[in-house]
Parts: sequence; C-alpha cells; structure tokens
Amino acid sequence: MLDVVTLGETMLRLSSPATQRLEQTAILNVDVAGAESNVAVALSRLGLQTGWVSRLTANPLGRMVVNKIREQGVDVSGVLWTDEARVGTYYLEIGHPPRPNMVIYDRAHSAFSLVNAEEVDWDYMANARVLHLTGITPGLSPNCRTLILRALDVAKKVGQIVTFDLNYRSKIWSPEEAAGALGEILSSVDILLSGREEVQTVFGFEGTSVDVAATLRDRFSIDLVVLREGERGTVAHDGKLHFHEAYEVEIVDRVGAGDAFAAGFLYGYLFDGRPMDRPETMLAEPLGTVDHGLAFGMALAALKLTHHGDISWSTRDDVLNLMHRRQQGWR
Amino acid sequence: MLDVVTLGETMLRLSSPATQRLEQTAILNVDVAGAESNVAVALSRLGLQTGWVSRLTANPLGRMVVNKIREQGVDVSGVLWTDEARVGTYYLEIGHPPRPNMVIYDRAHSAFSLVNAEEVDWDYMANARVLHLTGITPGLSPNCRTLILRALDVAKKVGQIVTFDLNYRSKIWSPEEAAGALGEILSSVDILLSGREEVQTVFGFEGTSVDVAATLRDRFSIDLVVLREGERGTVAHDGKLHFHEAYEVEIVDRVGAGDAFAAGFLYGYLFDGRPMDRPETMLAEPLGTVDHGLAFGMALAALKLTHHGDISWSTRDDVLNLMHRRQQGWR
Amino acid sequence: MLDVVTLGETMLRLSSPATQRLEQTAILNVDVAGAESNVAVALSRLGLQTGWVSRLTANPLGRMVVNKIREQGVDVSGVLWTDEARVGTYYLEIGHPPRPNMVIYDRAHSAFSLVNAEEVDWDYMANARVLHLTGITPGLSPNCRTLILRALDVAKKVGQIVTFDLNYRSKIWSPEEAAGALGEILSSVDILLSGREEVQTVFGFEGTSVDVAATLRDRFSIDLVVLREGERGTVAHDGKLHFHEAYEVEIVDRVGAGDAFAAGFLYGYLFDGRPMDRPETMLAEPLGTVDHGLAFGMALAALKLTHHGDISWSTRDDVLNLMHRRQQGWR
Amino acid sequence: MLDVVTLGETMLRLSSPATQRLEQTAILNVDVAGAESNVAVALSRLGLQTGWVSRLTANPLGRMVVNKIREQGVDVSGVLWTDEARVGTYYLEIGHPPRPNMVIYDRAHSAFSLVNAEEVDWDYMANARVLHLTGITPGLSPNCRTLILRALDVAKKVGQIVTFDLNYRSKIWSPEEAAGALGEILSSVDILLSGREEVQTVFGFEGTSVDVAATLRDRFSIDLVVLREGERGTVAHDGKLHFHEAYEVEIVDRVGAGDAFAAGFLYGYLFDGRPMDRPETMLAEPLGTVDHGLAFGMALAALKLTHHGDISWSTRDDVLNLMHRRQQGWR
Amino acid sequence: MLDVVTLGETMLRLSSPATQRLEQTAILNVDVAGAESNVAVALSRLGLQTGWVSRLTANPLGRMVVNKIREQGVDVSGVLWTDEARVGTYYLEIGHPPRPNMVIYDRAHSAFSLVNAEEVDWDYMANARVLHLTGITPGLSPNCRTLILRALDVAKKVGQIVTFDLNYRSKIWSPEEAAGALGEILSSVDILLSGREEVQTVFGFEGTSVDVAATLRDRFSIDLVVLREGERGTVAHDGKLHFHEAYEVEIVDRVGAGDAFAAGFLYGYLFDGRPMDRPETMLAEPLGTVDHGLAFGMALAALKLTHHGDISWSTRDDVLNLMHRRQQGWR
Amino acid sequence: MLDVVTLGETMLRLSSPATQRLEQTAILNVDVAGAESNVAVALSRLGLQTGWVSRLTANPLGRMVVNKIREQGVDVSGVLWTDEARVGTYYLEIGHPPRPNMVIYDRAHSAFSLVNAEEVDWDYMANARVLHLTGITPGLSPNCRTLILRALDVAKKVGQIVTFDLNYRSKIWSPEEAAGALGEILSSVDILLSGREEVQTVFGFEGTSVDVAATLRDRFSIDLVVLREGERGTVAHDGKLHFHEAYEVEIVDRVGAGDAFAAGFLYGYLFDGRPMDRPETMLAEPLGTVDHGLAFGMALAALKLTHHGDISWSTRDDVLNLMHRRQQGWR
Repeated sequence: MLDVVTLGETMLRLSSPATQRLEQTAILNVDVAGAESNVAVALSRLGLQTGWVSRLTANPLGRMVVNKIREQGVDVSGVLWTDEARVGTYYLEIGHPPRPNMVIYDRAHSAFSLVNAEEVDWDYMANARVLHLTGITPGLSPNCRTLILRALDVAKKVGQIVTFDLNYRSKIWSPEEAAGALGEILSSVDILLSGREEVQTVFGFEGTSVDVAATLRDRFSIDLVVLREGERGTVAHDGKLHFHEAYEVEIVDRVGAGDAFAAGFLYGYLFDGRPMDRPETMLAEPLGTVDHGLAFGMALAALKLTHHGDISWSTRDDVLNLMHRRQQGWR
Repeated sequence: MLDVVTLGETMLRLSSPATQRLEQTAILNVDVAGAESNVAVALSRLGLQTGWVSRLTANPLGRMVVNKIREQGVDVSGVLWTDEARVGTYYLEIGHPPRPNMVIYDRAHSAFSLVNAEEVDWDYMANARVLHLTGITPGLSPNCRTLILRALDVAKKVGQIVTFDLNYRSKIWSPEEAAGALGEILSSVDILLSGREEVQTVFGFEGTSVDVAATLRDRFSIDLVVLREGERGTVAHDGKLHFHEAYEVEIVDRVGAGDAFAAGFLYGYLFDGRPMDRPETMLAEPLGTVDHGLAFGMALAALKLTHHGDISWSTRDDVLNLMHRRQQGWR
Repeated sequence: MLDVVTLGETMLRLSSPATQRLEQTAILNVDVAGAESNVAVALSRLGLQTGWVSRLTANPLGRMVVNKIREQGVDVSGVLWTDEARVGTYYLEIGHPPRPNMVIYDRAHSAFSLVNAEEVDWDYMANARVLHLTGITPGLSPNCRTLILRALDVAKKVGQIVTFDLNYRSKIWSPEEAAGALGEILSSVDILLSGREEVQTVFGFEGTSVDVAATLRDRFSIDLVVLREGERGTVAHDGKLHFHEAYEVEIVDRVGAGDAFAAGFLYGYLFDGRPMDRPETMLAEPLGTVDHGLAFGMALAALKLTHHGDISWSTRDDVLNLMHRRQQGWR
Repeated sequence: MLDVVTLGETMLRLSSPATQRLEQTAILNVDVAGAESNVAVALSRLGLQTGWVSRLTANPLGRMVVNKIREQGVDVSGVLWTDEARVGTYYLEIGHPPRPNMVIYDRAHSAFSLVNAEEVDWDYMANARVLHLTGITPGLSPNCRTLILRALDVAKKVGQIVTFDLNYRSKIWSPEEAAGALGEILSSVDILLSGREEVQTVFGFEGTSVDVAATLRDRFSIDLVVLREGERGTVAHDGKLHFHEAYEVEIVDRVGAGDAFAAGFLYGYLFDGRPMDRPETMLAEPLGTVDHGLAFGMALAALKLTHHGDISWSTRDDVLNLMHRRQQGWR
Repeated sequence: MLDVVTLGETMLRLSSPATQRLEQTAILNVDVAGAESNVAVALSRLGLQTGWVSRLTANPLGRMVVNKIREQGVDVSGVLWTDEARVGTYYLEIGHPPRPNMVIYDRAHSAFSLVNAEEVDWDYMANARVLHLTGITPGLSPNCRTLILRALDVAKKVGQIVTFDLNYRSKIWSPEEAAGALGEILSSVDILLSGREEVQTVFGFEGTSVDVAATLRDRFSIDLVVLREGERGTVAHDGKLHFHEAYEVEIVDRVGAGDAFAAGFLYGYLFDGRPMDRPETMLAEPLGTVDHGLAFGMALAALKLTHHGDISWSTRDDVLNLMHRRQQGWR
Repeated sequence: MLDVVTLGETMLRLSSPATQRLEQTAILNVDVAGAESNVAVALSRLGLQTGWVSRLTANPLGRMVVNKIREQGVDVSGVLWTDEARVGTYYLEIGHPPRPNMVIYDRAHSAFSLVNAEEVDWDYMANARVLHLTGITPGLSPNCRTLILRALDVAKKVGQIVTFDLNYRSKIWSPEEAAGALGEILSSVDILLSGREEVQTVFGFEGTSVDVAATLRDRFSIDLVVLREGERGTVAHDGKLHFHEAYEVEIVDRVGAGDAFAAGFLYGYLFDGRPMDRPETMLAEPLGTVDHGLAFGMALAALKLTHHGDISWSTRDDVLNLMHRRQQGWR
C-alpha cells in the first residue's frame, strides 16, 4: 500500500540559464515539473512510498517526464500512455529583482488534458493512505474536472485522507471559473494548503488569516487550513493559529517551493516518526503535530529555494539538520 | 522592391546536443527553423533583398523567431503578430549512423496555422521579383491552404516568378491529401524543386528522373524541375537533364540542407552576376544558367551540412571558394 | 525618417563567465557592445525607428557586430565596411564585491578609429529627428573627433535635437585632453547626460549637482542636464532639479546600465505617448515630461542590470510593469 | 517475478568531454556505469522486468548511482546501503584514432568490494527467471568471489537460467588469477558471452572460434557460447556456428557496447515475442532463436555506440527499425 | 633559495556547478586543492619563490595536480612520483544559505598517505627561509605524521621559520587523536594560524581569544598566534591583540579562504616591502608588521571568496587596491 | 643548462566550438598558441628541459599565456614584460570538409612585435644545447627580424645546434618579402623543417622533394631537411631520402600538428635514448637516427591531431605505444 498517491499533469520545463532572458537564450535547461509530481518526489525522498498517475504521449519527451519522476523512487506504474496529442510544456525565465520570474505556458492540447476518467486504474488510486490533489487539474479541461471528482468519490469510499493545494493559476482560468469548480471540490478536502491571497482572489473572502480560515471552515467544513502569507507559514487548526517565520534564503530557483512546503507539512504532520516502517493498517491519525508539520514544511521549502528545478532534492537528514541549526540560534 | 519574398511558418527548433538522445538530454539548443525563412536567410546572406511573412504569437518566443531572421538582414516588416495561440516548435535529435535523425513536431495550434489571408499585406507581397513557397504550408491547415492560393493569385497578377519546394512531410498529411492540394498549386509554379522520391510518393509517378520531369511538364506545365536524387542534383529544363555530383561532407547537421540547395539554385540561376546592384525594372529573365544554379546550389548545400542549425551561414565568397577548389581537383 | 540616429564604435565584448577571473577562464562569452549602439538597440526595442552608423572590418567578426544590432531592429544600412584594420575588442571580468569589474581595452587601430568623415552618408544621418552621440568617440582618434564635429554641423543645419552622453573614459584620454575636445562639442548639445563626478573630473567643476548644472548652463548653454549621482538620478531643467531614487537590484551585469538610463530618459521624455505611430513632421517638442523621462530611465537601467551583456532586452511593457509595481509600494 | 536479476558493482564514470584529454579537462561528465546494471537497464528499456543488486555508500554519490538505474525502470529494492567505504569510480578519456580510449580505475576499497554474502536478500535474487553475472565481480575481492559462488548455488536450487559475460579486465587481475576463479564458475553457466580473444587470453585456448567453442563445451559443458570476433558476432550452439556482420557506425562512445550486445542477445533469444505480458510460470524454453538473438544483439550494440554513456537508450522500436532498414539493403 | 617551502597532499576537487546539488549534477568542475599548495600558489602569485612537495600517482590525474600548481609559478621539482595507489579526491557541493557547503572526502589510500619520509629530498626542503605546514597532514596516516616530525627536525637544524595552520578536520580524526599529534608539533612552531573554535575543539581550551592565545603561549611557547573568530581576524603577539574587521563579500566559493588568509598574513608580515628582490642572506626578522600582515590577510581572503576554486588568483596589486579603497571609506 | 631554447610570439587563440562558425558563436574557447612555444611544450612533455622567451603585456591576458606554458614545465623566466601594447590574438574557426579551417589574425601591434633585441637576456638564450626558431618571427616586424639575426649570432658563438621551421604565413608577408628575410637566415640553420610546397612558394624552387632538398643544400648548406609532403613525412639527409607514411586520424583539431611534428623529429633524432638524465657536456652528436626522428615526429603529429588546442598533450609513453601498435600491424 502506498503512503500517498497523487494525480496531475507534469510538463517539460524549459528554462533559460539564470543570467539570460528567454528571448536572448541559445540554450534551454530541461527539467520536469508538475505540482503533484513535485509533491510525490519530495515525499519519496523523505522516505515515503508514493505513486503518481498522469497521462503522457508515448515519445521520448513523455518518457523523459516519467524517467525523472521514477528516478526519485516514485511509483509510475499507474501512468497512462497514448500516441496522440503532446507533452505539455512551460517556458521559464528566472528573474532577478526587480525583474520578476516570467512563465509562458504551452500546455494546451496536452495528452493529460484529454484524459478520460475511465482509463485510470482506480484500484491503484484507492490503494494509498493519502490522496493529494491540486487546484490546477480541474482548470485544465472539463475532462480533468471530471477526473478530480471521480478521484474524490473513490477517496471517500475507501476513507482516504484528502489533501489539496489550491494552486490558483490565473493563466488557466478566471477567479469566477475557479471558484465554481474548486468550491465543488473543497467540501471533500481534509487538509487545504494555499496562499492567503490566493484563497481571497478566488473566493473573494476578506479579512485576516483567522477570518479566512474561519470562513473556509464554515463554508467547506475544512478543519485544517495551511496558509502561506508572504514569507510566513500559518496553520489554522481547531480554531487555533500556528505560525512559523521564514528562513533567510539565497534564492536559486523559486519555482516549486510551494509544493515543497506542502510536502513538508504533510510529511511532518501525518508521517514523521516512522518514515521507514510500513504498518499494515490504514493511517488512523496523524503521527506528528501541526507545529512539527509547519516547521518541516518551512525548512523543506527553504531548502528547495536553493535547488535548481521544480523538485526538492532534500533528504530527511538535510531538513532535520537545518531545523536543528535554527534551534541553535543560527540565523 | 525585394528580390525574393516568401511566406511560411518558422518554428523554434529545440535540439539535444550532438551526442545526446532527446530522452537523455538536460539541455536543448534553441534555433529558429522554417523552410521558407531558411531560404530567405540564405539569399540575404548571398546579397539579395529578401522579405519573409509569417504570423507569430507576441511573446519572447515569437520575438526570438523574428530576431534571428532579422539578424540575417531579411525584412520582417510584413510579419503578423497576435496575442493568441502559440509558437510552433519542433524537437530534433541529431543521429549518428546507423541511428537516424529523429524529429518530433509540436507545431499544431500555432499562430501561423490560424492565419487569415485577409490579415496579410498583399501589396507588400506583390512588391518582389520572385515569390518562393513550399509544400509544407498548405498542409498545415485549411487557412494556410487558402493563404497559398491567394499568394499565387497575387503573383499571377503582378507577374512574379513563382518558385516552389515540394517539401512533402509525412508527419503532416498523407500522400493523398498532399496530392490534391499540391496539384492545385503546381500549375501556377515556374520552378519546382523537390526530391525525386518525394514527387513519386505524393503523385505516384513512376520511372526515372527524366520520366518524372516529363510527367510534371505534361501535367503541370512546369518547364524547370530541380530534383535531388540521393546525393546528386538534377535539373530538367527544356527537355534536357543537367547533373551535379555531391561533395564529400563531414556532416554536422543535416537539417536545412534542402533549403540551402533551393536558395543556392535560385541565386545561381536567377540572380548571380549582379548581386549588389538593384535595377529598377522587374526580373525579365534569369541572369545565370541552369548549370551555374545547380553548381551553386550543390555547394551551398554542402556547406550548410557543416553548420549547426537549419540556416545557411555561408557568404557568396564561401561558395565561390568551394566551387573554385573543386574545379582545381580538390576532392 | 528615423526617430533617432547614432554614430559610434561597437566592439566585441569578450567576458569570462561570472565566477571566473579573466586570467583563469577557458571560455569567453561573446557579446557586442558600444555605448551608441546600446542606445539605438534599447530605443528600437521600445518601439522607435533607430539607425546606427559605424565602420567595421568586413570579416565574420565585423558581421557579427552588425548582426547582433540588426537583430534588435536597428537600421544598419549606413554602416561602412572596409577590408583593412580590425574589429575593436574589450575584455571584461565581472566583479563580485569587494572585487570590482575589470576591463581591458583592446580597441586601438580599429576600423572605426580610422574612419574618414567623407565616407559617411550624411543625408542618411540627417534624416532623423534626434542625433545621439557620446564622449567616447572624440577620444578614439583625431579622425573620430573630426567625425563628431561634422555630425554636429549637419545636425545644426537640419535642426536635429542633439543628445550627448559624456561617457568619460580614463583609459582613452586624460581629463585635460577630454576637456578640450568635449568643451568644443558641448555648446552644440541640447540634452547632456552624465555622471556628476564624471563632469567634475573632466572640467574640474566643483560643488553640488545644482552648481554643476548651473555651470554647464552658463558655460555651454545646455538647458537640460541629466546627472547620475551614486545610485540616484537627477535632472536639472529650467533651473529646477528633479530626482528619482534607484531600485534595489540583484546585479547580473553592470555594464551598459548607463546607456540604458540614457535611452530610457530620451524615450520617456521625448517620445513616449506615441511609440507606434510615425508622424510625418519633425519632432517639434517633447512628448513626455522630464519626470516621466527620469522614471523611465531609472526603470530601464534597473532592468538592464539584471541582463547579461551590454544591451537592454526590455520591452516597453517590461518597463511600465516595473514602474507600476513601484507605484504600488512594491519594494 | 522478475525476468532477469543481476548483481554487480556500478561506478561513477567521470569522463572528459570528447575533444579533451583527461589531463587537460576542466570539467568531467558524470555517468553511472557497471557491466551488470548496463544489462539490466538495456533489458528494462526493451520491456522486461529487471532487478539489480549491489552495495553502495549511503551518500549523494551512492544515491546518484541508484537514481540513474531506477530512472530506467530497473528495480533497485535489493540494493544494500552502508555508511562505510566509498563509491567506486572510473575515469574515462574518449579516444580518437589513432589515440585509443583510456581508462583509469579508481574502484579499490569500494563499498561493493567489501560486500558480505550474508547481507544479500537471496529470496529476492531467487525470484527471477534469469540470473546474469559477469567475470568482473569475482576479480574485485575475495568477498565478491564468495558472493558469486553463493549466487550460483541459489540459481541452481531454483533452476534459474544463468548467463555470464566473461568481461576479463587486465587492470583487475592476471589471466592466471582469472582462469582459476572463472573456471570454477563456468561449469554453472548456461549461456556464455565473451570476446574470442578474451577467452583465449584467460584460458590459453588456441584456434578458431569453432575450436574455442568446442573447448568450452568440452571443458565446462556450456552449450551456448556467444563470441565477439573483431566486429563480427558469432554464436556457437549445438555444434553449429551462426554469424552476423557488424553495422557501419559513427562511434560516439564505445564503452558499454559489449553489455548492450549481451542484453540484446539475451532479449532476442530468450524473451522476444512477448515483451509486454508477464506469464505466471517460469521460462521453460527460449522464445526466440539464436539467429534472432544475434541480430538483435548486433543492432542494440550498434545503436549503443552512438549514445553517450555506458548505458543503452534504445527502445525495442529503435532496434526493430534498424534491423528492418538493414534487411531493406540500407547500408 | 626559496622563500617558502611547503609539504602536503593536494587533491582533485570535483564540484557540482553552483546551482546543482551533487546528487543532481551531470557535470563536475575539476580543480586542484590542498591547504599547503593553496598557500604556495597564493604566495607565488604575490611574487615570492615557493616550492611544494608532495607524492602523487604518475597518471594524468597526478600530472593535472602538478600542472595546475606549476602553472602558478610554484616549484614542483621536489614532488615524488609513484605508480601505486591513487590520487586523493574530494567532492564539493557549493551551498546557498540556508543550505551549507557539503564535502565528501574520497582521499583514503592516496599516494601521499603512503609516503615514506626517506623518499623526500630533505636538502631541497631545507633550502627555504620559511617552512609552512598544516594540521591536516599528521591526520592522514602514521607515515604522514612521521613526515611532519622529520620536516620539523630539519627546520630546526637549519633555522627555518616554521608557520603552521591548525586546520582541524573532523572528517579525518577525532579531537583526541588530533590533540596528541598536534601538541607534539606545536612546540616547534613559530607562527600558528587557526580559527579560535578550532583550537578549542582540539585542545579543550576555554575563554576568549586572549585566554586562548595566552594558553598557547604558556603551553607551546608560541609567541605569535593568528586567530580567526567568526568573520574577524585577530592576532595575539607579544601579549597584545590586533584586530581587523572582515569585508562585505558576495561569496562565489568559500573553500580556500582560510589558506588565502594564512598566505596573506605571512606575506604581509614576513615579506612585504621587498617582494621582487632576493637577498642572499636568510630572513633575519620580519619585514612587515603584524598589523600589515593582518590587513593583507583579510584582504587576500576576501578576494579569494570571490574566486571559483580553492586557490587565490589575486596579484599584489589586486590586494593593495582593495586595501586602498577600504582606507578611502569604500564599504 | 636547457636542452632546447626557443623564442617567438605566443597568442591567445580564440576558437568557436567545433560545430559553430565564428560569425555564429556566442562563446569562444581560449587557448594559447605559438609555433615556438608549441615546440617547447611538446618537448617538455617528452622529458626535456626547455625554455621559451617572448615579450608580453603585463595584464591577465599576458599572464594567461605564460601560465599555460609554465603549466607544461617550460621555463619562462626569460619572458619580457611590458605595460605597453597588447597581447596578440587569433580567431579560429574549425572547419569540417568541404569547409576549411578559417583563421583571422589579430596580432598586429603586439608587445612581441615591438621587442628590442637589447632587452633579451642573451646569456639565458646561450645556455641551451639547441636553439629552435621559426620563419614566423622575422615576418612580424623589423624588430623581430633583428631579434632573430641576433639570436643566430649568439648561437654561432656558443655552438648551438640551430633548428628552424620555415612556417611561411601568407597573411603576414608576401613570398618575395619572406624569401629575402628567410634566405638571410637559412645559411645559419642546421636542421630545416618545412612543407615542400611552402619552400617552393617562398623560394620558387621547382621539382621533387629530392630536387628541393638538393637546392637547399647547395644554396644554404643545410644538410638535414625535413619536408612534409601532403600527409607523408620526408627527410633528406646526406643526400638520402627517408619516408614515413601518415597515420589514419580522426581529426579533432588540425592546428599545431606541424609544430608537434617538428618537436617529435627533434626529440627522436637529437635526444631520444636519454630523456631523463642531464649530461654535463654539450650535445656533441645526435642520439637517435633520422628514421627514429621521422617516426617519432609522425606519431606525435598524429596524436596532436586528436587534441583540442595548439599544443601537444602526449607523453613519451603515448608516442611509443602508438609506434608499437603500428609495428604490430594495427592500422
């Protein structure tokens, strides 16, 4: 049985070298990137058994996507292959202040966006303790929205913990479109991760993090909300707020830090304490605390900011060493 | 007035380094590539005034395409810009025998394929001595097919010489589809360039080069046919055949050599002898001979095979030096 | 008619990779760099019609210089070609504090330094609204000094606005030599751009920016002086001072920021508001304000500091977005 | 159940770029390389379920070795981790005729050479149809020799087909040492792969391939011997000889071609015809023919010669296309 | 006669590019690195005659080590060559805060660690004014410890000034082991360089720098102790403390800065004032002051932090320029 | 005492990567290159004591030139430094047939061309068994011609063997100019190396190699002439001709192969047999034979063709291994 299964699109990420604008570059670095596979990879490197399901064109580009996720120990046996369509792509220009990062999506008409929910092996999906999804997927196509709803149905039936990263992408859909689709989803979610402003953009909620968390609880019955506010991490749980200040970071690559934060929180809150053993029963209750989750997530995100590429290359030791140094007053 | 105007799609070409397979690579070389712009660039570098018309998404990728063509002196003022759609792309893996080159097209839904013929500045198109087109364009979309027919209408009205490179691409359409569209076009063509097998694949013609040329003359009234057969260049003109053997080449990059051959032939046959002056009158008759065109084309193509990227970086001096060395018995 | 024409030497810039000292490097990045062409490129990218005139050796290095400027849409039809002499070069080592940037000029005996003013097409030069020059040119050779004086004569006759970036280079000439040559020039200048200390080094002026501007006005009748002081931009106009604080920047490449600042000021002050239309009449008066020019220049310079190479790769949208974010309190 | 399991050391391979000698280089390409894992990877890419067992130091270098093998779909769950010792390394300089490839081994004292046979999960090893070993392992240390003998014992008990690539390495041991250890092993081998000269160097056999094969049969009861002679592949089976001529190849990287040949032969001879289904029973008899195995091996080896790195990046389609083109007279 | 001779192991340093973790990298930068040769190189570049003695395997890797040190003008004629063993190696991952630098030593069983003191040309060693050693060497092997003791004997006999950089490496030995070996050495040392915490870790001394210096003086009769505390440099001499604040540095590569500091202090204190002349007599007394040595060392270390690689690429002019700019209030 | 001393200009060689034309490249590889230092380096790597004298600008570029030659063990203590002028440069584009190599010299006005013969330490020059010069130097400037004549005077006085590589460069001077200057030199030469066509171009000699050698003997009293004819090496000595066929080579970089041939011949003919000992007396007579020299030169040149850069990276073992494999019939 997997610890965590996830489902989503992973793209080729084509980025110009750090000092070159996209328009200027003669070479592109090739990485693979997807919010869901980023989480699966980060968790696998921390010691969990994870699986990732997607749909890809059967060509060298699609194989490269799978290779790079499999390289990190994620189970990819549930991936669907097709001869049609294309592998989604995005172009990235790394910014240097005051010039921001720039992203050009080239993911329309991808093999994943054309997925038919019937193709997926739902038994595979069901055989995991936690189901992790993001708000990108329902925005990709009606097919993808159907896929997500089906996954939530399955999760409900088998009693999976459902974790969800809102990940609102304004390049994919408008707040209004997102609010409709995401609202339908949120009532099935156990743990919601998001930026505070992101929630507010989509749903129009106002007020402080406390207010937002309360509204989410009232409206969608989500008892555990993890909010990033600027550089601070916040968790609302049982009506209480938990905070963690960010690390000072020399940023190498900002993309994927949110996914690392999500993975770190889930690991620290749900799993840490028994990373290497595989109990036979389902996950009855979290093994860590909200505060440990938050600290773990902030550390994993800080380390990710120092890695090239979307994915986290940290081990559990890397994270614990950093948390330890911080406790010792290291700035 | 331009010497040559051309019209077609130019893509980003993303190629793995020479010793890396696509699936294996962590970096991609970025070049721009299009059969028509390749010809415009090659001719500009030889000293002609050329223009290229296309349609591109207004983002850094689209600008890069235009930049690299403008860099070579081609007039790009006729390019159409749009905020919609995407920049066409193709992935290239350079082969080493016995492993062949591999191409993955990712050009569907491009800004060019959605072109509306009404958008084009036809006065600009008309203001050139020669119109150069290729058989790729009509295969891209119905819009593109309409575009080509409109260009031929304009050419006929103003008396442009029409040159056409068949460029059959099996990844775009079937021989049957191509035969229909291309047949409609060929009767407006003055000079046809193609591989012999390519013509035979599309139209089902049989026999030798002589037969093929005769059939093309009978069926489409094309009096000048330039055929590549294996590594040899052949021209059928006025019922006579002209041949030129290939050079021994240490191949760096095979892609674009056909376009260089086309450009070299057109330059040597139509223009050579007055590359730097700009007479006020239209091109009444060729300034070179068929044999000079053939020799020039073979040399330009041989040199292109030694350049990285789709485009020819040769100058007229480079070509003449090579032709001179060959005449002197240099192998 | 061009919006801006400029005249000057452009060199190959050979720089070691960011973490390597020159003495240590096994590879050099090749870019093209010249104060005047930098301005022409920056303005072309903002939407103006610009032309650049120079003199180059007709070989691949000279062609590379022209290619890279033409790539950006600058008209290069006025460039003079020669078979003699060499292409000017400079070696650059990017510093990291406390180690400063290091430059080794290798530009003596270049084709440009041997220019004869009679070779230039003065009708081409005259056919522009604005003439932009720098104080580098007269320091290169007596021929170059004659060239500048001739250009100013032509400008006066046709009523061009003359803008001048002082650009004192201690590696080319002493303050005394510069003061003589530049003093002769400044009385023909409408808009002077310079660093405050630079003016003081050359002319020995003392006091604050206000004093320096007043002295320049008294001595050379220049009514509009744009001074950089440390990281602040200052404009003295009509006896008033205008200021703009610098952006916080993560510097990638410092070289060329002054040229970007000059181009940004000229664009914002003289042209912004109608970047895409081309009125038939001469530029009667500025279309922007001094404050808009200053803000535009500071933003364009800040963005340039984040680009590798001497030239600005920003678009007008890039600049406006940055100015907008600053207005919104973004640090 | 796995199709093939293998056991051996995999090293970091540090190679200078193709045009640089080792002494001259400022950068090294990093790949992972091991005769046994090369075979496991090649077979996994052809569609088989393969597993590879080794012993590695638990640090980023050891993880890199595992990552790159897991990336290709090979099961690595049997790998042993230790905190002691080091990851074996070899330095490679790619030759260009007449300069040969040069290898510097730096693999002494590696984690694998210190393996204790008791650490291995022999149930895992036993759960495969075929066991593949090479003659490198017993040369690495007495521990490794014990390991191999134990693996052969297990194979005998469960009835695994044992395939063995002689792979004599003169940098590891003398022919005399090798003859002793390898002789002890060969009587347990079902299929032996080797170069003809290699066998002769180790065992002192004389004569032609026929003679060598006969001697091997007499002495070690090996009924199927696959010999490479120069560029030709030869198989002796049931007293008959089968030949296959080599392809003309533009060599990119020679290392690992022997492993690709071994994998290709095993695949074509033992498995081809049902690459994607997984029958529940043991492999009763070969599914292909000796000739198909030989042709497949020669093609896979030829393609490997065009790949950078030790491992084969070919798919089954790549191989079949090449075999098809050859049948069609393509040189 | 040499100004300074030194003795120690130099390794290949294999580092991933700045933005890549070791586990992630496909290329490694190759440099040579050793605390003692770093000092010899830094001093040679400042104008001294230096020699470095070591023991290396006679292969391209060993030659590369010698080449890169000889490139900087250090005399390498005393290096011992052997056909056995291996060239020591270390892997480096450059950190970005909060991720620290990571080092993996792979230096066990190196040619140097097997050195026999009898092999060394002690006349060569004796023919220098100053002998510089570090605390790394005695930790490498018993042979190396014997070597150091022999070198100290020779130094005593000929009256060399002995300088010693403590350089405690926890990856090589424990504080207890180090304390024994280093204590035996320190009583022969004239100038000790170390980090304050380093001394305390090894010897368990407590208190402030003043206390530590006093204890070192009492226990080992070392009159001149140079201590780095955090980012500050401190020298205890004749019972007085001298301080120097660090520079603000944009760090490129932290490794080797301590060696640059040591070299800078030695140069500034012992030699500066006559860098280019070679007096015939032995060095009777220091030519500089402790404060000049400290300032020189801090500047050379700050510059080293901006160089890729272990070695200092600064010239004496680079250092003096930096010291001058600081005196002028430049931050 | 040195075995061989040489004197000449060494330049920075800036070459585009192998697949890029110069006009196209964004990076340049930096190497150092000079016919004389190439010989000094090749001989030093073979085990001789060599020295090289030149004149360079004291900046990082000049230091890089010296570093790279010193790296190879050549004594550079005789190099003259100046603050004036520039470091000579040449740009190289590696050809691929049928496109030839292209060289752009940018060496005029270099520090070396301004050398004053009085600056040279003639005692240093005199303290060597063999003086090696080339025909490039007298073509660089009148100063350089004077320098060469002075060197020959000194050689005569102390009885040095004078070896001379004709190295006619048409980009430096005409055959007529060269004939005058070189004719004056040749009568002082003991061993002349040249291409046969080169001699004929300069002096107008006709006929076969035999004729040319005879004419050289008659006219300049040179008893030992080493001629390259196409790919064959020829030596005329004592009226007899010796031949050696070329190796089949996969060429990486053609430049410098002539210098490697010269060095190889001189080593094999004059020195081989006692490469590591240093007899106290002058070289009374050659230690090898003409045939050994020829074989050694052909092998060293063949190996050089496989190295990137102007210099030979071969060791004596590399050469002997190649000669051995050839004797064994290896093609």
